[in-house]
Amino acid sequence: MIKITRPTLLLDETIARRNIKSMAAKARQHNVELIPHFKTHQSKRIGGWFREQGVSAITVSSVAMAGYFADDGWQKITIAFPLNILEIKKIAELAAKVELTVLITAPEQVRALQEHVEVFVKVLIEIDTGDHRSGLPANEPQQIRQLIDLLAGTQHRFKGFYSHFGHTYKAANGREVAAIYHAALQPLTDLRFGFADTHPEIHLGDTPSASLSKDFTGVTALHAGNFVFYDLTQVQIGSCREEDIAVALACPVVGKNSHRQELVIYGGGIHLSKESLPDRETGKHSYGKIVLLTGDHWSGALPGCYVRSLSQEHGIVQVTPDVLAQITPGDVIGILPVHACMTADTMAGYRNFKGEKLDHFNACRWPAG
Amino acid sequence: MIKITRPTLLLDETIARRNIKSMAAKARQHNVELIPHFKTHQSKRIGGWFREQGVSAITVSSVAMAGYFADDGWQKITIAFPLNILEIKKIAELAAKVELTVLITAPEQVRALQEHVEVFVKVLIEIDTGDHRSGLPANEPQQIRQLIDLLAGTQHRFKGFYSHFGHTYKAANGREVAAIYHAALQPLTDLRFGFADTHPEIHLGDTPSASLSKDFTGVTALHAGNFVFYDLTQVQIGSCREEDIAVALACPVVGKNSHRQELVIYGGGIHLSKESLPDRETGKHSYGKIVLLTGDHWSGALPGCYVRSLSQEHGIVQVTPDVLAQITPGDVIGILPVHACMTADTMAGYRNFKGEKLDHFNACRWPAG
Repeated sequence: MIKITRPTLLLDETIARRNIKSMAAKARQHNVELIPHFKTHQSKRIGGWFREQGVSAITVSSVAMAGYFADDGWQKITIAFPLNILEIKKIAELAAKVELTVLITAPEQVRALQEHVEVFVKVLIEIDTGDHRSGLPANEPQQIRQLIDLLAGTQHRFKGFYSHFGHTYKAANGREVAAIYHAALQPLTDLRFGFADTHPEIHLGDTPSASLSKDFTGVTALHAGNFVFYDLTQVQIGSCREEDIAVALACPVVGKNSHRQELVIYGGGIHLSKESLPDRETGKHSYGKIVLLTGDHWSGALPGCYVRSLSQEHGIVQVTPDVLAQITPGDVIGILPVHACMTADTMAGYRNFKGEKLDHFNACRWPAG
Repeated sequence: MIKITRPTLLLDETIARRNIKSMAAKARQHNVELIPHFKTHQSKRIGGWFREQGVSAITVSSVAMAGYFADDGWQKITIAFPLNILEIKKIAELAAKVELTVLITAPEQVRALQEHVEVFVKVLIEIDTGDHRSGLPANEPQQIRQLIDLLAGTQHRFKGFYSHFGHTYKAANGREVAAIYHAALQPLTDLRFGFADTHPEIHLGDTPSASLSKDFTGVTALHAGNFVFYDLTQVQIGSCREEDIAVALACPVVGKNSHRQELVIYGGGIHLSKESLPDRETGKHSYGKIVLLTGDHWSGALPGCYVRSLSQEHGIVQVTPDVLAQITPGDVIGILPVHACMTADTMAGYRNFKGEKLDHFNACRWPAG
């Protein structure tokens, strides 16, 4: 049993490796490329497990994160974030080292690439297919044509369309995910035909579609990332089972309130992040479910127990009378996260059951220039 | 004008110093000790500005953070977090170096102190006066007496009661804060008389009460911390004016959606944190307000503009047609945070308008043992 004294993000390697293997196999079976998003784990060590499954191209969410993985020998990197003109010099340096793919939506971005990035990069135009976060509307072919034409006059190459079906994360079940997936894929299929002269590729970003869809016709590549760990949000959507969650935050118990059947834990918003979801089992707003640590894994989620609230370093856990009777200050409990990407990012490091530490990129916290 | 290329937490030193000076003056005027909570800024450099105002005792939220400030020469430190029995050895090491005050609510904590901490520490019993986060209920004098009696048989010393009036953060205005303050202070006053034989001190934790109350009768010390930066939550409560907010997150603009009058910014949940509030001006759920950077400060919040949603690294900013027309990808805008403590923690570093970097404690992200 590894010794826990402070909030510690436990990683079950067996589960993470199984999730990776399963998604890699699915991609092969459907003849679609897996270009996994590394913003979830942000770890060179975990990246190696993807390599073992034949993955050679990866996705990141920032220029700095691209640099982190380039240093680890990754040669094909997609920065799946709108090109940040202010970092164009760093992008140019990176393009000289690796085979870089970037996302754009505006003429200013094409001009920055043309003026400052000598080595050619591949360019995906981001399309908004209903998520309403980022991307050009799919029904504005003139704007899209303008960007493609602008790119044609540069040293860079238009590669296709990227879309993040982020609205699948709000789906209630697999059927809703399937409906969103097909509705969002349609305009991309239309673009593929409308711009057939450019032979555009189609790149998708979300984990629910990648996990649940059984038909990737017309899709070139999947950039999903969350599936490496999964989390309670994905369980609720139906993308995975609770047993597929590969990370749990170990938290010391520091107090107990018998009146309200609550535990106070050392583990707050700076550890779990403040992501929450309306939990279906309890009907309450939850920041995580509770598990018991078993030395080399953890138990199933304890029924009726959940993280009721989080402040900076405190967590308040609602428990049942049975659980309350079992636990005292000085014990350690585990929390299954609502959103594993955010929890991994705030914790910036993992520990496996052998007690080893695994790296997590953290440089973005300290602006470089 | 300092060069921004990535999300950067700007700190206006003049405002932070003014906030510190003003709270220190208020405490002196009311004859109450200011033991400021350093979990908000977590910075040695900013800690120095408190020293200049005569502050000699400080508050932190973790043992590791106590170590960080002990290394900087702070000799009187309160860890305002329920004593974590699993860190008792580190607490013992710390107690040998500085004058330590700890918080307890359970007999197990007293026993851990007795067995493992040789040097005497001062002990505050945490009382729940309505916030329902942590603390013994004020109306359970038997439990409190039991702890005091247990402590009397140890090398440690019962010092008094600590209560965090966290429910003031949900107050709609200053009048509500005053009502909560007086309602929550009453049971502490009762305890002070009930346990008069022990001459208990009364310690309070929240910023709204410290900012708004004009009567600290019976109060020994204020442990507020947020006031150094303030934020939109405190503006909405009435603890400060918008002009008192000392930090803004500078974010590159990376996209623009004219249809929905939105900007896409490089600045997400890993930068601002996912704290939100229902904004009174717009009636919408907001993750921050928008300001324009002016080189040595920032503008007032732009009316009708706010951060509508955050994902891991993206922020979506709702703007007015006027603002939309002024801003293009490659520009930088500022975000006033909803909760400055959380934003400072996720960013883990500041930059002032001279371009200097200021430290922020960050070790809690990487469990030590």
